[in-house]
Amino acid sequence: MQIIELETSKHSEILDITERVDSIVQKSGIKEGICIVFCPHTTAAITINENADPSVKKDMINSLETLIPWTNDYAHIEGNSAAHIKSAMIGSSRTIIVKDGHLMLGTWQGIFFIEFDGPRKREVYMEVVPK
Amino acid sequence: MQIIELETSKHSEILDITERVDSIVQKSGIKEGICIVFCPHTTAAITINENADPSVKKDMINSLETLIPWTNDYAHIEGNSAAHIKSAMIGSSRTIIVKDGHLMLGTWQGIFFIEFDGPRKREVYMEVVPK
Amino acid sequence: MQIIELETSKHSEILDITERVDSIVQKSGIKEGICIVFCPHTTAAITINENADPSVKKDMINSLETLIPWTNDYAHIEGNSAAHIKSAMIGSSRTIIVKDGHLMLGTWQGIFFIEFDGPRKREVYMEVVPK
Repeated sequence: MQIIELETSKHSEILDITERVDSIVQKSGIKEGICIVFCPHTTAAITINENADPSVKKDMINSLETLIPWTNDYAHIEGNSAAHIKSAMIGSSRTIIVKDGHLMLGTWQGIFFIEFDGPRKREVYMEVVPK
Repeated sequence: MQIIELETSKHSEILDITERVDSIVQKSGIKEGICIVFCPHTTAAITINENADPSVKKDMINSLETLIPWTNDYAHIEGNSAAHIKSAMIGSSRTIIVKDGHLMLGTWQGIFFIEFDGPRKREVYMEVVPK
Repeated sequence: MQIIELETSKHSEILDITERVDSIVQKSGIKEGICIVFCPHTTAAITINENADPSVKKDMINSLETLIPWTNDYAHIEGNSAAHIKSAMIGSSRTIIVKDGHLMLGTWQGIFFIEFDGPRKREVYMEVVPK
């Protein structure tokens, strides 16, 4: 298992980790199989989405904030229930197929770490399983 | 890796791909393991849900449209931010356990491709990893 | 493949299954690989989230109920469309990395079965795939 270390700089933020994931896949030497990208935090998530226009990230953060507002009638005393709920909605991991030693992403896809309660130091766990 | 080719006919649409996924699992000859069904597009997704009453699909499309309206104050100039956000919420892939050469789905479960910005030609990537 | 049997006692409920999943991983004898936790039901889901303060679960159930109200203008005659939609939004499975024979969860993470249309008898399918 490999660990990617990150540092987020805003309260909500989407960081592109595609190149770091791809580099670990290539170093693994595994040509055919699957790659698991896992977020070990309960107020952040992993997603795959458009890597071209940065305004997509902005729209995603704003839409999620509208759906799950930070301030609401939450019971959780720590005050960050919204981040936990967004984390569960987007999900803690993504699985990508590996072929010829490369991540089989679509043309416009990138792999992203989403911070919902930053800024914080964060980690991403990765594993590559051969076919 | 195998590719399933699809053609969607509406703007938002849910297509059952269970039989095509099952057929690829059977042809793989793999009896025990897992199957990954991956959507390489950023305005579509993969889900597993009820395969019996078609009205569930209609309710799902309508509910997602209510949560993430097509027209809103989005920054993304292409105009399809809602499709990107729905894609991230549902997710780009699903993993199903394979046992005795069959997909271990529940009685009422089917595997679906969800189009959020069609009609378009689409692909689904598939891999079967033995145990 | 292993099956975890559950019985939910409320209409909406979040049950911690971390210890049962971990126990199956340890019995498998697999030291390095991945573990798939799969929900074969279309009105329930699997998530990974905070295992410490139980109020996070309450906030999650309430927020999802606000987003996808039980009573609405649904077409599905069975009356439980909201449960199907929540199930698709949270997702039917989670994948966790296994290292040194242990689930590589973060400090505050647990694995949870979410019931959206209980009380019912339920199952969770599990598979461990070695690296």
